[in-house]
Amino acid sequence: MGFEEMWHELEPVGRSSASGGYFRQPWTGAEGELRSWFAEAAAARGLRVETDGLGNQVAWWDAGSGDAVLTGSHLDSVLDGGAYDGPLGVVSGLAAIDVLRERGVQPSRPLGVSVFVEEEGSRFGIACLGSRLATGTLDWSTARELRDRDGVFLSDALSAAGLGEGGRWSELDGVGCFVELHVEQGRDLVDRGAAVGVGSGIWPHGRYRFEFAGEANHAGTTRMEDRHDPMLTYAMTALAAHKQARLAGERATFGRVAVEPNGTNAVPSRVTAWLDARASSEGSLSELVDVVIRQAGERAGRDGTTLDVTPESVSGEVAFDADLAARIAADHAEGDWPIIPTAAGHDAGILAAAGVPTAMLFVRNPTGVSHSPAEHAEVADCLVGVSALANTLERLVS
Amino acid sequence: MGFEEMWHELEPVGRSSASGGYFRQPWTGAEGELRSWFAEAAAARGLRVETDGLGNQVAWWDAGSGDAVLTGSHLDSVLDGGAYDGPLGVVSGLAAIDVLRERGVQPSRPLGVSVFVEEEGSRFGIACLGSRLATGTLDWSTARELRDRDGVFLSDALSAAGLGEGGRWSELDGVGCFVELHVEQGRDLVDRGAAVGVGSGIWPHGRYRFEFAGEANHAGTTRMEDRHDPMLTYAMTALAAHKQARLAGERATFGRVAVEPNGTNAVPSRVTAWLDARASSEGSLSELVDVVIRQAGERAGRDGTTLDVTPESVSGEVAFDADLAARIAADHAEGDWPIIPTAAGHDAGILAAAGVPTAMLFVRNPTGVSHSPAEHAEVADCLVGVSALANTLERLVS
Repeated sequence: MGFEEMWHELEPVGRSSASGGYFRQPWTGAEGELRSWFAEAAAARGLRVETDGLGNQVAWWDAGSGDAVLTGSHLDSVLDGGAYDGPLGVVSGLAAIDVLRERGVQPSRPLGVSVFVEEEGSRFGIACLGSRLATGTLDWSTARELRDRDGVFLSDALSAAGLGEGGRWSELDGVGCFVELHVEQGRDLVDRGAAVGVGSGIWPHGRYRFEFAGEANHAGTTRMEDRHDPMLTYAMTALAAHKQARLAGERATFGRVAVEPNGTNAVPSRVTAWLDARASSEGSLSELVDVVIRQAGERAGRDGTTLDVTPESVSGEVAFDADLAARIAADHAEGDWPIIPTAAGHDAGILAAAGVPTAMLFVRNPTGVSHSPAEHAEVADCLVGVSALANTLERLVS
Repeated sequence: MGFEEMWHELEPVGRSSASGGYFRQPWTGAEGELRSWFAEAAAARGLRVETDGLGNQVAWWDAGSGDAVLTGSHLDSVLDGGAYDGPLGVVSGLAAIDVLRERGVQPSRPLGVSVFVEEEGSRFGIACLGSRLATGTLDWSTARELRDRDGVFLSDALSAAGLGEGGRWSELDGVGCFVELHVEQGRDLVDRGAAVGVGSGIWPHGRYRFEFAGEANHAGTTRMEDRHDPMLTYAMTALAAHKQARLAGERATFGRVAVEPNGTNAVPSRVTAWLDARASSEGSLSELVDVVIRQAGERAGRDGTTLDVTPESVSGEVAFDADLAARIAADHAEGDWPIIPTAAGHDAGILAAAGVPTAMLFVRNPTGVSHSPAEHAEVADCLVGVSALANTLERLVS
């Protein structure tokens, strides 16, 4: 079964008929289907599948000896997300194994395709939760107490999905190298006219919970000047964050908001909003967040509201293996593939931070749109991506 | 059973142990308990209770003949609301009947205490839904298709509560006069040093749904200048509405917001927000809303987003019966009770618009806070309210 057939099989899973977008949140029905699909696709190739207590999977081609080479990505999506972010890397990994076998490659070391759960953090709020736990960069004792929007504990969500506990996964101990292929989430490759690019590293980034508290009151009878309305403090903060990031060429987004009591005729008592911030260096990320917090605090003083900021997850700068990147880039017949940084977090960043030499391949996205039903990649570019990944893996396992 | 005992009985129903606020949404368990409580309190007084298909109730003291006098209010609350908004008028109505009986009053006409459902519009979005349907100012064919936040149709919510269809209620046909007692939702009576005030009318007010649409995208990789982020358009609109209303001495509130997809790492595709606007005249209300829409539209042009505004419910100015108000005000021994307007909607406004001569009594609220767990009235003031209501009803039924 080739790339396009696998892609076609995945298309309907977790797709909203209303928006055309994907709702593949971890430990839900759609995500369980994807896990079964992966196990079957691996079994059909004679690969041995290992699964940990969280549902992280690796399909092993047991060959040769020594440190293993791992490729893969994730199958979960953001809420109402696109088809490519995650699944493209998993499907390309399986397709690349098919290419190696067609070429008669006999690996000198084990080769695996991995699927890490909750990469998007769309349910429990921490991005790359599966790879963080599996590499031991996050403790299970901390994670088990996480709750989703409905108040469900992570440990209960796992039980309900027939899974167990999370924690460091010994299956990753023998991994000497990780290569993740991913759809590009921007237009760099479009501008450069290249179907494929190679990652240099990941911008530092973080999620910060802003809790604006005021005083609930009647929306009709309370004079504007008597209010303590946290919605105003939030609104000014969202505008300030955008302006600051734009000036600095960085990123700041308020995409998630929860209002209490959220009634039309009540001044809110509380607005909770999450800042997603990214910058080219750790210093500039701190500075960006500090400026937003300072401006928010000043406005809170004028609104008679209060502000409390909690960093929920902050990831430092990740540099991928420079030699490996250069070798992958040189693989292109007509001049090197471009080497580009990304402002998106990936499991590759977690594995790199855990000390595994890591590389990323990006496939061109004609519109640059991602985390949206409109996310897209042309089949021809995807097949170039499979070929580039196969070449990279062949070199690594030879 | 006196005022304080009744109040004590109601206190725990639908109260959140976390916030101390009330969640008495219509056709839920808490609201069903309140309906049963009212039926029992009426039966204990030998009053005949009538209920329509929506759950609107009237407890009748069948006396005399001719046009009936009705008093009452509502028992539902906003989300996380206070104890007084609504229940104070219902409990005071029953307590006033007790006072009339103690005084040996023999009414020359029927006297009823009413409870109208979904006054707050906290579940189905239309304030005074029960009285609008019962008076025929809203059609059942329109209302039956309303859905709550979870997508439940009004008709299904009614079935689930063991109720039936809504529509014009003939029980109200013989009502010649309606008097609603309510906690004040502001500090006018505090400033005037009066325990009780009499309503002159209700400001025109409306609810307007603002739908800001943009393009979902990745919060990390999408450059700020490439976004079409409806959150920014919304944020500027919320600030503009506040500023405009403050300048004009009117009211504009965005207290309810829904974001799609509402993920931390996604630029939103859509922000829906509800404007609650109130002004001293219909002309100034239109002007206020027009200015907010115009400013929002200009910002949408700059953000590359779109805006669609739907008025969900707009109520014109209501003037209560001036003669009746003057007579009630003159009832106070030490100079008249103050006559004051209100910017809050009430079932009294719906009955007045339906042609019933109507009056309102307000009871002092020491902080002015309403639609909040902090809403309060002193027992002494509540008892002055009961006495003033009893005096008014005695005059009307004599």
